[in-house]
Amino acid sequence: MASQPFSGVLVPVLTPFTAAGEPDPVRFVSFCRFLLDQGADGLAIFGTTSEANSMSAGERMTLLDRLVAAGVPPAKLMPGAGACSITEAATLIRHAVGHGCGGALMLPPFYYKGMSDDGLYAFISGVIERVGSAALRLFLYHIPPVAQVPFSLDLVGRLIKAYPTTVVGLKDSSGDWSNTAALLDAFPGFAVFPGSEVFLLDGLRKGGAGCITATGNVNVPGIRKVYENWRTSQADALQNEITTVRKAIQAYPMVPALKRIVAHFHDDPDWAAVRPPMTALTEAQSAALLADLAKLGFTLGDRRREADE
Amino acid sequence: MASQPFSGVLVPVLTPFTAAGEPDPVRFVSFCRFLLDQGADGLAIFGTTSEANSMSAGERMTLLDRLVAAGVPPAKLMPGAGACSITEAATLIRHAVGHGCGGALMLPPFYYKGMSDDGLYAFISGVIERVGSAALRLFLYHIPPVAQVPFSLDLVGRLIKAYPTTVVGLKDSSGDWSNTAALLDAFPGFAVFPGSEVFLLDGLRKGGAGCITATGNVNVPGIRKVYENWRTSQADALQNEITTVRKAIQAYPMVPALKRIVAHFHDDPDWAAVRPPMTALTEAQSAALLADLAKLGFTLGDRRREADE
Repeated sequence: MASQPFSGVLVPVLTPFTAAGEPDPVRFVSFCRFLLDQGADGLAIFGTTSEANSMSAGERMTLLDRLVAAGVPPAKLMPGAGACSITEAATLIRHAVGHGCGGALMLPPFYYKGMSDDGLYAFISGVIERVGSAALRLFLYHIPPVAQVPFSLDLVGRLIKAYPTTVVGLKDSSGDWSNTAALLDAFPGFAVFPGSEVFLLDGLRKGGAGCITATGNVNVPGIRKVYENWRTSQADALQNEITTVRKAIQAYPMVPALKRIVAHFHDDPDWAAVRPPMTALTEAQSAALLADLAKLGFTLGDRRREADE
Repeated sequence: MASQPFSGVLVPVLTPFTAAGEPDPVRFVSFCRFLLDQGADGLAIFGTTSEANSMSAGERMTLLDRLVAAGVPPAKLMPGAGACSITEAATLIRHAVGHGCGGALMLPPFYYKGMSDDGLYAFISGVIERVGSAALRLFLYHIPPVAQVPFSLDLVGRLIKAYPTTVVGLKDSSGDWSNTAALLDAFPGFAVFPGSEVFLLDGLRKGGAGCITATGNVNVPGIRKVYENWRTSQADALQNEITTVRKAIQAYPMVPALKRIVAHFHDDPDWAAVRPPMTALTEAQSAALLADLAKLGFTLGDRRREADE
């Protein structure tokens, strides 16, 4: 199994939009710095939580250009390269590799449903061949509740076997612990990241690499505590704390809820904006969400430094 | 209700790929001409059958450029503009309008599932506003078995009301006649095209505009006969004939099967190539399909002129 640079708590970074609905590189750079300053081990920009598929390939590449130009270390970045065509996925990944990103996170092609593993294999393989770079570290993105197209255990095994130095990990957003456990059992050394911190401790105890989780956008310090202390006697109590926060947030539509929380704690109401087809929380939902979090004593945690201060 | 230029038999044109897996504009132009010569009333290029979402936006726009440059009448074209982002959908539609295409066919954003009608409305509305052209004739593309995101009756009604001269029709690929019938009942004058010729006669009898059907790639003459004779006593018998052909073909994966049929009847084996994640039919499937069609006495029909002769 090839070396890969990621472990710990990775954040699929929310994307800020301007009032006119355009991606906002200034607030994006600032927020990425904030997350790293809070202790995030990596930034999985352009994921599902990032509304990446609500942006064109060009918009995503421009944001990455701006991030790297601003001095955010590319080695910490694992850009998503979600696309339904081999050509667009290859363009996005080539761009990420060109910037020296630590890795890239790749959805299966998600328009056609019920495709065979042979077809999905040909797609991923086609992208890897088109990118044609020994520097690529590719992470598969398994999120059947949204993509509706899975990476089966068999397909993952075939890809690792064919591309052992390239296909080095997987984000498992199935929400199904038994799938995560099966991956960890089947592929020792392969970097498996549960897509929710709810499974962080269970994952670490079974050889998992950490987690890539939406709520990292608002709770890096809490989640990091579990990662730092997972071998200690406090681990279960710390895990319970972050699971409680997660459950409070996911009682609402996740992305709008996270953006509302960021808007609140960063004192920047414009952060609440989402791009269609998502819709922002209603005022009533926002008030209820913030009240729920207040009851838990939740804040953004130990902020080492506010990037915008 | 606004005027719209389409009626009759529209074909979501198959896209030929080269041996290297690139879209082949030469064979694409030739095939589009062949379909028009066979009597197709319009070409809904870049649909699901076209593997459009397996091509980047740039690849699609290049094919359209080549088609128009070759003299295929833009008024006959209804390019698909399937995209998950407002920005990419607007780019594709602006490009089609710029070429003077008769219309554009638009999927809902299909990555995120379970979005509200408000969110989907904001997406479609956002695209229309960004395109900002009175010349646009937009057709909604309802294909829940693939997109997994529907255009509800209520949403269609809201869009027609807000954009009466722009949102002028819909392709219903739900495969659910009751949905097609409900649309025809709810929106008289709105151009509803069933996504299969199986519903052509029923649709016409209820005020439908024709059909946009995958099997048009291989059976324009047969399907046109139903359209030309739907008020006559032969209509039901003619409908039965095309339904029988359709069912023989859809016993196999539709796109690879159609490409295999084109490869056979156009004496061009390379036509069988599909782009991943699709896979070509096996040799056994191909032989069985062609045998099934031979039993029905099926040929490509009354070819008025072979474009490549």
